[in-house]
Amino acid sequence: MYDFSTIKTELDEGVLNATLDAGPLNLIGPEFVADLVALLDAVERDDTVRVIVFRSAQPDFFIAHVDVARVAQYTAEAAKSGGPDDVSLGALLRRLSETRPVTIAVVEGRARGAGSEFALACDMRFAAPSAVFGQPEIGTGAYPGSGAIQHLARLAGRGNVMQIILGSDDWSAEQAARVGWVNAVLEGDELEKVVGRLARRIASFPEAAVRLAKRRINAVTLPPKEEVQIDAGFYQTLVRDPAVQARLEQLATVGLGTPSRFELEFGAALDDLGKQ
Amino acid sequence: MYDFSTIKTELDEGVLNATLDAGPLNLIGPEFVADLVALLDAVERDDTVRVIVFRSAQPDFFIAHVDVARVAQYTAEAAKSGGPDDVSLGALLRRLSETRPVTIAVVEGRARGAGSEFALACDMRFAAPSAVFGQPEIGTGAYPGSGAIQHLARLAGRGNVMQIILGSDDWSAEQAARVGWVNAVLEGDELEKVVGRLARRIASFPEAAVRLAKRRINAVTLPPKEEVQIDAGFYQTLVRDPAVQARLEQLATVGLGTPSRFELEFGAALDDLGKQ
Amino acid sequence: MYDFSTIKTELDEGVLNATLDAGPLNLIGPEFVADLVALLDAVERDDTVRVIVFRSAQPDFFIAHVDVARVAQYTAEAAKSGGPDDVSLGALLRRLSETRPVTIAVVEGRARGAGSEFALACDMRFAAPSAVFGQPEIGTGAYPGSGAIQHLARLAGRGNVMQIILGSDDWSAEQAARVGWVNAVLEGDELEKVVGRLARRIASFPEAAVRLAKRRINAVTLPPKEEVQIDAGFYQTLVRDPAVQARLEQLATVGLGTPSRFELEFGAALDDLGKQ
Repeated sequence: MYDFSTIKTELDEGVLNATLDAGPLNLIGPEFVADLVALLDAVERDDTVRVIVFRSAQPDFFIAHVDVARVAQYTAEAAKSGGPDDVSLGALLRRLSETRPVTIAVVEGRARGAGSEFALACDMRFAAPSAVFGQPEIGTGAYPGSGAIQHLARLAGRGNVMQIILGSDDWSAEQAARVGWVNAVLEGDELEKVVGRLARRIASFPEAAVRLAKRRINAVTLPPKEEVQIDAGFYQTLVRDPAVQARLEQLATVGLGTPSRFELEFGAALDDLGKQ
Repeated sequence: MYDFSTIKTELDEGVLNATLDAGPLNLIGPEFVADLVALLDAVERDDTVRVIVFRSAQPDFFIAHVDVARVAQYTAEAAKSGGPDDVSLGALLRRLSETRPVTIAVVEGRARGAGSEFALACDMRFAAPSAVFGQPEIGTGAYPGSGAIQHLARLAGRGNVMQIILGSDDWSAEQAARVGWVNAVLEGDELEKVVGRLARRIASFPEAAVRLAKRRINAVTLPPKEEVQIDAGFYQTLVRDPAVQARLEQLATVGLGTPSRFELEFGAALDDLGKQ
Repeated sequence: MYDFSTIKTELDEGVLNATLDAGPLNLIGPEFVADLVALLDAVERDDTVRVIVFRSAQPDFFIAHVDVARVAQYTAEAAKSGGPDDVSLGALLRRLSETRPVTIAVVEGRARGAGSEFALACDMRFAAPSAVFGQPEIGTGAYPGSGAIQHLARLAGRGNVMQIILGSDDWSAEQAARVGWVNAVLEGDELEKVVGRLARRIASFPEAAVRLAKRRINAVTLPPKEEVQIDAGFYQTLVRDPAVQARLEQLATVGLGTPSRFELEFGAALDDLGKQ
């Protein structure tokens, strides 16, 4: 229906199935960000879209993370989305959380860094048993600046969010479900069956009630906007730091940002990095 | 001990066992609301009541939901409870949360809509494996205006509360326990044994400590009072909307508000409604 | 490395292993509090300490609770830690939560009262299957004044924190994990393996990122400082109350504060007390 270079969509009885297809890792780069802005602009004007279900076209990656080589470029694209103060990927994902259609992420493969944060910005998340979640930023010297700290602190509580963020390790789908990172883990056909039924139900319910309830739930569960900008600022500061840049370049030599063993096993790979 | 038309009570060593008996569905109508106000008025003056345990006299329903044909009437009764600004069922349930005695709901059968919200307003909830929880309001076009959004957002986190409220589906006791909707699911005799021991312990503990701790826990976990009134207002607006009234009347023709297959399977029944 | 009378430490690649050894119950008394203040003073000046792992030297007790016979003395020691308004054990534990090094509690045996609150003040908690958690204060007539209400309300939600605090009962490690009281329960060698790997990882990660992330997580998850002082004040008031003092003296005659059957089974022992 709406087709962008990295997001393909199909509308089915009020449910927009949106497939993310931005290369083998589904990196969040300037094209993807521009497409996400265009998608939100489109659906917010289109009352026939009641629910959006996001899926990845890649078997091994929902979204690996941002493209660390193009931070300035994707941030510039994100800045085209909001008001004069909303100038970050974090602010764009906050807009995703507040968009009128109800959003559901179906996670198979790795969802790390801003990929996890994209899923967290959706209203609900359902995972295949093979899904892997991670916020490895601290292990790289950078910072989870697009919502992970705010969302996971509220979902998982102080002890778990400390372990997730400071530990920078991979979490299995089952472990993620236990702390609220995903709603549920569903095996085989169950995943699409449960998500499909839920999406169709919501799309069939009276619009005013759905819109109002989502807004009121957001009022309790989303962080204040200032907090989103503070985290985005810390990310910008740390990711530009020369020592962090050096660490990211070192990681690039072992596979960061390319289809590699490193990207498959990012969490465990940080163990060895620490020893260097 | 205190006997009202829809609530019967018995006091046993500081524990007031209160049985809800308001017809086959235990609908929340004007009589029940008036009795609840009278019960709170009575126990708040009576220091011998340390703990209240609520149970239903009906095997299949804890409380089905409100009586949608008598919203104005039960709201008028609720308004007799509080100050000039507390003029809603939500405000009355908030008073229940803040009442001096410690409150425990023992849930068997369905607890949906304001029935679930009644249980959520209690300090603790324990369920039989057969219990069913639901907030089906959005599926009817109405709105969970008596606390569900505020309580469940804090208990279950953003992803789960979106699924519960927007999905409007039934949740089993086990599923409810996983997201904090109930404290625990207990089989057979265990349910009464665990609740009885807990209630007797609390009733035997020094009163000042119990009262102070409950107040301080409420200070962290209850929503601001303004939020309760905002949700109550949205419910009043939506439930009076002609389109919602039409939908509720349609639901009445298939069993809403009467002992019916529909009331037993409310969550699943909304699937078919959506298709019409 | 830093050696105090009740806390022994050893530094291993940025991880300070701190063993609590304050008598058979590891009671929190004036010596322990003075040592904790000295430890925090030392590590906050020492950048080589990146992570602290707290363990108990006692097999049956992580920390039993405070020394109720020396409240004034340990409070005076705690008051030496902070500013003019931070004059309580609760304020000292709040400082522990905010200290620059990342803190992990490894809990074996009983962690009750301020022992549980000490663990809750740490950034993360991991437990052996044999660990037992409890906040029995209300059952004694006193009050959990050093963080339990604030932490557990946010971690476990309204229903569970009411059960924990008002019920004053023992919780197994598994039960505690289910409500977020601990991060995970780990059997046998797994406990040290998982904690050791996590601690070494964090100690090897870039310092600025770890420090900033911890600070931002705390900003979401810790209570306002005023709330800490309010709870500390309620504890001081209740623990000095003559009726509470009488109850504590009665408990001392059956084993409170000494290596005893009572201290092993504190939660269950309150059942019988209530009956007197």
